[in-house]
Amino acid sequence: VPVTIPPSHADLLERPLLCTLATVKPNGQPQSNPMWFQWDGKAVRFTHTSTRAKYRNLQREPRAAVSVFDPDNPYRYLELRGRVTSIEPNPDGSFYFTLAQRYGLDTGGITAEAIDAEHRVVLVFEPEAVATK
Amino acid sequence: VPVTIPPSHADLLERPLLCTLATVKPNGQPQSNPMWFQWDGKAVRFTHTSTRAKYRNLQREPRAAVSVFDPDNPYRYLELRGRVTSIEPNPDGSFYFTLAQRYGLDTGGITAEAIDAEHRVVLVFEPEAVATK
Repeated sequence: VPVTIPPSHADLLERPLLCTLATVKPNGQPQSNPMWFQWDGKAVRFTHTSTRAKYRNLQREPRAAVSVFDPDNPYRYLELRGRVTSIEPNPDGSFYFTLAQRYGLDTGGITAEAIDAEHRVVLVFEPEAVATK
Repeated sequence: VPVTIPPSHADLLERPLLCTLATVKPNGQPQSNPMWFQWDGKAVRFTHTSTRAKYRNLQREPRAAVSVFDPDNPYRYLELRGRVTSIEPNPDGSFYFTLAQRYGLDTGGITAEAIDAEHRVVLVFEPEAVATK
């Protein structure tokens, strides 16, 4: 059963805001950093590569947390807890460019090599719990 | 040995920005949310209460991650990984008010009861590793 996002906070998933994605390292320590994302009403998708630490973290521990706050009122926030349910190869890097467009980045000079397209993946995160404030 | 914060990113700890604090729940799942903080050059301090989930998480797993990004350029960020090395009782809630002042909140109408001062604690987090972008 997909979680229900409170309508009062749905904009935080729709606006091109950076979220913080928290994962757990193989040694059990949390790790977090800002990420681009896209929400389709059921899942949050991220562009990533298979050569980076977070990918290795998620191979071992798929559970993750996504948090977003409203830059216009940072006391209003949304946290999703759930898991990465699939990791899809994306060797043309197309999802990187989809997100770059969503976030208003000029991709004119960005080559496939520059974004390590060969190793690009799409992380698909499905929320199981929602917290808001 | 305290970590060295790159001077290029020191402002992210000095400005009154919200950070995201990631902890690990007793079941191993990460949890994260925005928090006020204060940095003194060695430790990050948070106001919290002993009745909340993050407190229980930290009792079991003191390792945590703090990330802050620059709202003026969200691609510039700082992540600190480390651990909560002490949790200090703060039953007058004074550190809540210290942070409220740092963040420009009008505390005129805020009572000790409203902030659950009786259960207030200061979380002291010491970084062991720094990542920047």
